[in-house]
Amino acid sequence: MKQPACKDIKITEVSLRDGSHAVAHQFTEEQVRAVARALDDAGMHYIEVSHGDGLGGSTIQYGKSLVDEMRLIAAAVEECRQAKIAVLLLPGIGTVHDLREASKLGAKLVRVATHATEADVSAQHIHKARELGMEALGFLMMAHSVSTEKLVEQAKLMKSYGAEAVYVTDSAGALLPHEVRERVKALRESLDVEVGFHGHNNLSVAVANTLAAMEEGATRIDGSVRCLGAGAGNTQTEVLLAVMNRLGYDVGIDLYKMMDLAEDVVGPLIRGSQEIKKGSLVLGYAGVYSSFLLHAERAGRMYDVDPRDILIELGKMKVVGGQEDMILDVAADLSKKRKVEATR
Amino acid sequence: MKQPACKDIKITEVSLRDGSHAVAHQFTEEQVRAVARALDDAGMHYIEVSHGDGLGGSTIQYGKSLVDEMRLIAAAVEECRQAKIAVLLLPGIGTVHDLREASKLGAKLVRVATHATEADVSAQHIHKARELGMEALGFLMMAHSVSTEKLVEQAKLMKSYGAEAVYVTDSAGALLPHEVRERVKALRESLDVEVGFHGHNNLSVAVANTLAAMEEGATRIDGSVRCLGAGAGNTQTEVLLAVMNRLGYDVGIDLYKMMDLAEDVVGPLIRGSQEIKKGSLVLGYAGVYSSFLLHAERAGRMYDVDPRDILIELGKMKVVGGQEDMILDVAADLSKKRKVEATR
Repeated sequence: MKQPACKDIKITEVSLRDGSHAVAHQFTEEQVRAVARALDDAGMHYIEVSHGDGLGGSTIQYGKSLVDEMRLIAAAVEECRQAKIAVLLLPGIGTVHDLREASKLGAKLVRVATHATEADVSAQHIHKARELGMEALGFLMMAHSVSTEKLVEQAKLMKSYGAEAVYVTDSAGALLPHEVRERVKALRESLDVEVGFHGHNNLSVAVANTLAAMEEGATRIDGSVRCLGAGAGNTQTEVLLAVMNRLGYDVGIDLYKMMDLAEDVVGPLIRGSQEIKKGSLVLGYAGVYSSFLLHAERAGRMYDVDPRDILIELGKMKVVGGQEDMILDVAADLSKKRKVEATR
Repeated sequence: MKQPACKDIKITEVSLRDGSHAVAHQFTEEQVRAVARALDDAGMHYIEVSHGDGLGGSTIQYGKSLVDEMRLIAAAVEECRQAKIAVLLLPGIGTVHDLREASKLGAKLVRVATHATEADVSAQHIHKARELGMEALGFLMMAHSVSTEKLVEQAKLMKSYGAEAVYVTDSAGALLPHEVRERVKALRESLDVEVGFHGHNNLSVAVANTLAAMEEGATRIDGSVRCLGAGAGNTQTEVLLAVMNRLGYDVGIDLYKMMDLAEDVVGPLIRGSQEIKKGSLVLGYAGVYSSFLLHAERAGRMYDVDPRDILIELGKMKVVGGQEDMILDVAADLSKKRKVEATR
């Protein structure tokens, strides 16, 4: 296994996609233009622009976008002289039709994202993207919740559909550096595709996780300026680049310009701060989707159980999105167990 | 070298000392009581209470405290049933007289802090603390700015004065995990005292640095709830404890109680958010004292030089506090160099 050179490392900035969660999907066209222009000028490689839940995510269920994402994609493409615009697509939310439209508007890359055990639903969209002449990469979400063997198996599926890279996607910010290392290493050894890493900072180790991933040969790296993203936010791009500079990784992105745009262009967009607060810490610790938090709090009140115990139990059970009804069962179960213990 | 057991790891919470910087030294007695009480109840081992710059720091130069630190120390002592109150002392700012007073009020531990090359000024205060029956630990600040050999030499001095532990103190948040590992390892191999680690989060690796320190056998660990501290703030205690729980380190502190107090007791004290912003990132990247920032900005305007170039140059020169006059020289120098280059 050959270690990749610095020039092989490509950074994807996700503040205009994952960051959409942090602003309740209320990005304006002017904001997107300003961020894209500044990132392009700094030399950013890829800029992802989509609803937080990917193409087609603007719904009552996932949150309505203020401005149609296609208009935002077109605006970002217009602003960029060298950076390529990427989109995210979750099969089931986004469609082939959405993908075709994004491609027509100038998006050059798509990350097709599935739960870490459901790579098979990505086949159609990866095929279609390649047909459209786009770069097509696979995104294995909640990568902490499956064994390394399972992850390799699922990554192989994505590769077989035509994915040119597969990401270890730490959606819940639950992975620790040694766990990232193990996963990236296994993917690199088992697959002849590029490996990527997408981190969240719920346990305050997103930068350390990303360094571990790069040390093991990951070449597709995600970051978000000022951590703007779901949960506790993502790997902070400008901080990661500062650390990479210190370590001698030169990826051709201007650090000072990144620091400046973080302060002057992205800074003003921040609504709540991207600190690690109780909710996001619990989610990273339990390793569950952020959508579970409110459900667990309600179930906890109903059964007089600490919602954290519920979330930790759900994390152990590897419950996935769409199984929210199990939350009440778990709460009832914990409550019953506690009563039995109390009468002993 | 024997790896220490979990029970040997002692956590010192510094939000009521380093966090004093983050609230411009305006802690009220009620706030200190509430935080100390909650930390004590959660099982925290040590709680440091002093002006941000240590005993005696309440001055025009360092910032006046709202409430006399001795009153805050007494209040914290009163609130604690099991936690021990610690104080920080920088020789030259704090005096033997201050130390005696803190000890009388019930402080049980002092960290005597010097620049990483100036351990010799700690002798008197370490001796005095031992005489008073206090635990006396040495704090080698700006540990990134000296070689590991130098750090070992200085730590040996502190030990010779009676220090029961010596800390690698990453004041500028400039160390990366492999650099922490190297320093802690060298201290552990060369000295028969406990080794500690105090981190700042300017490069977003404070938790990862702390894990590296513990893996190499550090047993005295600092954290600050909600990162409340100077610069980008410290290692976030409740996040560190969550990660330690995940890794099987049980240090007898209640994680849920820590999460709760972080949200309900410390949260309301936060003035600015403890995110990593441009200023703190530059400081960590350059490895210089935060007091240099304003000086560098002024010098930059005067000589039309980017203040970041000035700070990075100062970092390379290992300039220490008290040498602020060199900042103008560096700016003039950079400006001259640039003009020479431009005429070539």
